[in-house]
Amino acid sequence: MGSDSDLAIMSGATKMLDKFGIAYEVDFVSAHRTPQKVSAVAKGAAARGIYAIIAGAGGAAHLPGMLAAETVVAVIGVPVASGSLFSDGTDALFSIVQMPGGVPVATVGINRAENAGILAAQIIGASDKNVRKKLEAYKKELGEAVHNKSNVLKKIGHKEYLKEKGKKKNA
Amino acid sequence: MGSDSDLAIMSGATKMLDKFGIAYEVDFVSAHRTPQKVSAVAKGAAARGIYAIIAGAGGAAHLPGMLAAETVVAVIGVPVASGSLFSDGTDALFSIVQMPGGVPVATVGINRAENAGILAAQIIGASDKNVRKKLEAYKKELGEAVHNKSNVLKKIGHKEYLKEKGKKKNA
Amino acid sequence: MGSDSDLAIMSGATKMLDKFGIAYEVDFVSAHRTPQKVSAVAKGAAARGIYAIIAGAGGAAHLPGMLAAETVVAVIGVPVASGSLFSDGTDALFSIVQMPGGVPVATVGINRAENAGILAAQIIGASDKNVRKKLEAYKKELGEAVHNKSNVLKKIGHKEYLKEKGKKKNA
Amino acid sequence: MGSDSDLAIMSGATKMLDKFGIAYEVDFVSAHRTPQKVSAVAKGAAARGIYAIIAGAGGAAHLPGMLAAETVVAVIGVPVASGSLFSDGTDALFSIVQMPGGVPVATVGINRAENAGILAAQIIGASDKNVRKKLEAYKKELGEAVHNKSNVLKKIGHKEYLKEKGKKKNA
Amino acid sequence: MGSDSDLAIMSGATKMLDKFGIAYEVDFVSAHRTPQKVSAVAKGAAARGIYAIIAGAGGAAHLPGMLAAETVVAVIGVPVASGSLFSDGTDALFSIVQMPGGVPVATVGINRAENAGILAAQIIGASDKNVRKKLEAYKKELGEAVHNKSNVLKKIGHKEYLKEKGKKKNA
Amino acid sequence: MGSDSDLAIMSGATKMLDKFGIAYEVDFVSAHRTPQKVSAVAKGAAARGIYAIIAGAGGAAHLPGMLAAETVVAVIGVPVASGSLFSDGTDALFSIVQMPGGVPVATVGINRAENAGILAAQIIGASDKNVRKKLEAYKKELGEAVHNKSNVLKKIGHKEYLKEKGKKKNA
Amino acid sequence: MGSDSDLAIMSGATKMLDKFGIAYEVDFVSAHRTPQKVSAVAKGAAARGIYAIIAGAGGAAHLPGMLAAETVVAVIGVPVASGSLFSDGTDALFSIVQMPGGVPVATVGINRAENAGILAAQIIGASDKNVRKKLEAYKKELGEAVHNKSNVLKKIGHKEYLKEKGKKKNA
Amino acid sequence: MGSDSDLAIMSGATKMLDKFGIAYEVDFVSAHRTPQKVSAVAKGAAARGIYAIIAGAGGAAHLPGMLAAETVVAVIGVPVASGSLFSDGTDALFSIVQMPGGVPVATVGINRAENAGILAAQIIGASDKNVRKKLEAYKKELGEAVHNKSNVLKKIGHKEYLKEKGKKKNA
Repeated sequence: MGSDSDLAIMSGATKMLDKFGIAYEVDFVSAHRTPQKVSAVAKGAAARGIYAIIAGAGGAAHLPGMLAAETVVAVIGVPVASGSLFSDGTDALFSIVQMPGGVPVATVGINRAENAGILAAQIIGASDKNVRKKLEAYKKELGEAVHNKSNVLKKIGHKEYLKEKGKKKNA
Repeated sequence: MGSDSDLAIMSGATKMLDKFGIAYEVDFVSAHRTPQKVSAVAKGAAARGIYAIIAGAGGAAHLPGMLAAETVVAVIGVPVASGSLFSDGTDALFSIVQMPGGVPVATVGINRAENAGILAAQIIGASDKNVRKKLEAYKKELGEAVHNKSNVLKKIGHKEYLKEKGKKKNA
Repeated sequence: MGSDSDLAIMSGATKMLDKFGIAYEVDFVSAHRTPQKVSAVAKGAAARGIYAIIAGAGGAAHLPGMLAAETVVAVIGVPVASGSLFSDGTDALFSIVQMPGGVPVATVGINRAENAGILAAQIIGASDKNVRKKLEAYKKELGEAVHNKSNVLKKIGHKEYLKEKGKKKNA
Repeated sequence: MGSDSDLAIMSGATKMLDKFGIAYEVDFVSAHRTPQKVSAVAKGAAARGIYAIIAGAGGAAHLPGMLAAETVVAVIGVPVASGSLFSDGTDALFSIVQMPGGVPVATVGINRAENAGILAAQIIGASDKNVRKKLEAYKKELGEAVHNKSNVLKKIGHKEYLKEKGKKKNA
Repeated sequence: MGSDSDLAIMSGATKMLDKFGIAYEVDFVSAHRTPQKVSAVAKGAAARGIYAIIAGAGGAAHLPGMLAAETVVAVIGVPVASGSLFSDGTDALFSIVQMPGGVPVATVGINRAENAGILAAQIIGASDKNVRKKLEAYKKELGEAVHNKSNVLKKIGHKEYLKEKGKKKNA
Repeated sequence: MGSDSDLAIMSGATKMLDKFGIAYEVDFVSAHRTPQKVSAVAKGAAARGIYAIIAGAGGAAHLPGMLAAETVVAVIGVPVASGSLFSDGTDALFSIVQMPGGVPVATVGINRAENAGILAAQIIGASDKNVRKKLEAYKKELGEAVHNKSNVLKKIGHKEYLKEKGKKKNA
Repeated sequence: MGSDSDLAIMSGATKMLDKFGIAYEVDFVSAHRTPQKVSAVAKGAAARGIYAIIAGAGGAAHLPGMLAAETVVAVIGVPVASGSLFSDGTDALFSIVQMPGGVPVATVGINRAENAGILAAQIIGASDKNVRKKLEAYKKELGEAVHNKSNVLKKIGHKEYLKEKGKKKNA
Repeated sequence: MGSDSDLAIMSGATKMLDKFGIAYEVDFVSAHRTPQKVSAVAKGAAARGIYAIIAGAGGAAHLPGMLAAETVVAVIGVPVASGSLFSDGTDALFSIVQMPGGVPVATVGINRAENAGILAAQIIGASDKNVRKKLEAYKKELGEAVHNKSNVLKKIGHKEYLKEKGKKKNA
């Protein structure tokens, strides 16, 4: 990412990569402030054996596209709507997703860095059975969490459920 | 894709896959009209050795997300703004990209099926050096095409260039 | 609904159904996390004698459409703009309302779960005179509440009215 | 509908009602030009045994909401983006769907009058098994149409399919 | 206005009318909850000698348009983005301003009830020299307030000015 | 208006003023190209006995606001989405309607110059019974036109009606 | 500009520069296809004595921002909504204008390349009296063109004016 | 700027001008409240040797365009989304950037007054080597700040970095 104001949101990606046991690097590289480094990072990615690059950016959000311009490694873009900038993330979304023919950026939802982490794992999982198994286990967990909540809801009713939720929030 | 009205646009992806020598299947599967088939296609994808699923959809555009719900194979979504429906593609873009945590769809630009094809090749290229080389060659071509046009422009000047372009269009 | 973060808003629907004496079930079913359950719920609805399904969802908001894909029971969709997600509800509105030909979702306003409850009552009221009478009584109430406020306003004037309102808020 | 410029689009609803064997009336009633008639139509609907009212409107699009204000019969709203007015239908969508608490309008997609017809059939089908069966048959047809196209596609391939489609268009 | 949640904002209009010495009435009339009253108010307006009707509304915002449907007295519409509803006022703006041919609503900016008051005064001022003089005096005041602030700014400098402003805010 | 490219649309206003027998002037005055004339026109309006100024503009659309800045005569703004400029009229709408406190512009719908003409007549009609009567007659006409079309529709049915309409279009 | 599909629109800038007698170069440089050239052009600009860089781009539109990242020469950005791409120019506008702190792009209106040419001339005119004089003459011309049309309008009336305009269009 | 509510944001420009040692004036001039002063400021700018005018405005935001109408000095527009007005800055952005042909405003991002200051310095730097050097030094600083943060990040890791950042915020 280009600025440490995006770090809190982008950590969602590292949490997922940690979960799936995937090695990664985190760095600040700015399309507009350190363009040479963007170029170096992108050009060196394939040779260094990198499977995917996750780039988060807000506003004009050129970072994902500029990385994609200089590598054939898949670039995953996260439109960031950070509180410290004036932007609701729509500008970043359009700037990241509307790439010209020949130079795609795999875009995820606004502030959805965790989904960028999962997508990176899916790219690795295409050829790594171990990662794919972990992804399958995670998908199961997601479903089970909903089923468990559904069971609680049926047991205590929706009014009680809301009260319990309110208590947890205030605790 | 869910409808043959999207076929012309989605062919952009097959052209790229052909170019990179990647095998693929094309089919009509509709999130709203054949949901059972969506489920079957998604669930069977990993076992069949599929590296990536490209799904194009317009309007409410649920197909990419519903495929992603039932597989850990990467799903690439193409928001389609086909002329036969009333929609400028923004509704499809939001519907495809704004997926909840845990279930990403790798979204490309509106109508940019060719970029979905390239992204699929990049996913395969993560573990297949042959495909990666072809991607690198293609990237070079893209740059050279711009340089060639630049040379023509410098030689004949921008006014002449525009005239020539107009002639080609009408020819 | 797919997530308990939508429960507070969706309770607006249960309040209305309680008011009209209509039996209902509340459950968590997620289009992206428990797609099999979505399918089961939808397919079983007609046989179980269900008159209408109310589905609330935010972001990509596929739940209402995916339920509608597998049942001919009317599906009422509530676009949710919950505070815990990054979205103002417009993405959910488009994703819910822009369904393809053949598969409608009856969409109400953003966060307007109470209106979904009333719409469900209207569907039942089409063949149930008792429910229709309650709807008529409720409509009368709505009008009378405005007339009563109008009477207070005329009696105490708009400046005093605003002061009283401020007091109630702070009490 | 309020204007005969909306008739071509709104005919999509009558086609569906014809298909399901449902009796209906078509009329011009304008929220802004014949408000008394709007009021009369809405007030008389329940007594006349009407199951649902389908109202299409463009621009400020007050017709569905004003009908809903004076009846407890379900009102289905179709945002119209007719070519003869300057509007892409978004204004009409918001005006129709964002109704205040207590007065819902069941909104379908922009120009999706056929879905309004189906939704009306679903409301009737809640208590009429005959209509419900027709809806189920129609749903099956929708799925089969996709399966049939899928079979053709597999047989002749996507390039040939596109050519055939092009021929039909020009024929 | 239709709801007392809009009263605080709509008071901006009464303040202006008070300033210009123009008599007015304030009332709650709801397009969707008391449509008969809307009709009565609109129809009686001309006979009662009313010069202009100011109507504020949020969301679907049908009130101004429905008043305009039944009177030839000028209707001024104020799109309201009240905090208690989910809406940024754009839906109300489009619903109020995009009226069909033949039935205008004079629309002012979102939440700009004071401007509705001034516009009403301008309508009266078209034939009432006394009101016009007050409008001219008010316009002068507006300019002088800017000139006075400009003088303070030049005297104390922009840094000191900001500090003073901050103090006033916190006092 | 500022440009003759807006003249065709703005003629909608003159047709209405002709209909109501109201005298008017048409002129080209550009906020950005002839600002001095804008100022002169606005300042002189009250003294010349002008009741209302109708200003149409597209894009940045400063003309209505700049006229309003220098007169207390009511200014009616028409956002223009002319075909010769790149703009769908939303930019002009926001630029015209979102005026600051103290300086209203009475805004009508995009390209709705005829409604600006009617609004001007309503302003004059506030003190001129003759104009008011014409407005009432015109309102009646509008309603009768809808009733007449409704009668034709009932007589020949909606399918025949559409055919007749198609014939007229092609004739 | 990055693509020859933008050349027709960007020629608007060269026409203005020709008019003001300012020397310029036209070239194709693509942020995503020839990023090295972008970098070289930007870095060399100051040393080559270039006063301003005009960059037009559509869609993700990274070119102006990437040039601005590597030079302190003023970069003027033109959001392009070319017919051959799917985009109304809003995505390009946001991508160009919403630059982060420290790296401005001077953005003009969508497709307004002629204004980019004038802005470049204004930048040069800041220190070159000859260019400034030409700008002043041009501004006068703009005003006179409006005055001349106004004179014709007054002489022949608005109905005749429209007819004449229609004739010219068809001629 | 037209109002002291914009002063806090517009101070971003003065900080940059201070940094680059550029003399400037700050003043309140309102397009709608002191139009004569706008005209005087604009007309006098060239003769007074002013290199660029920075104008910030929110809502209808006519100030930058009206200044540009009466001078050939470059006008830089800052769309302001101040908290005290109801507007997210998009209305101001469109109103400022979508100027007609012949009268450009160099627009920067929403609330990005610091970028307006830098752009002004770039305009001066076109002919003033001293200012250009300062701009180059500043650009270097921007890059170094990112590199320094990158070094800290590599040293302490992203989890620790976030914690430190949190501490600073709360301190």
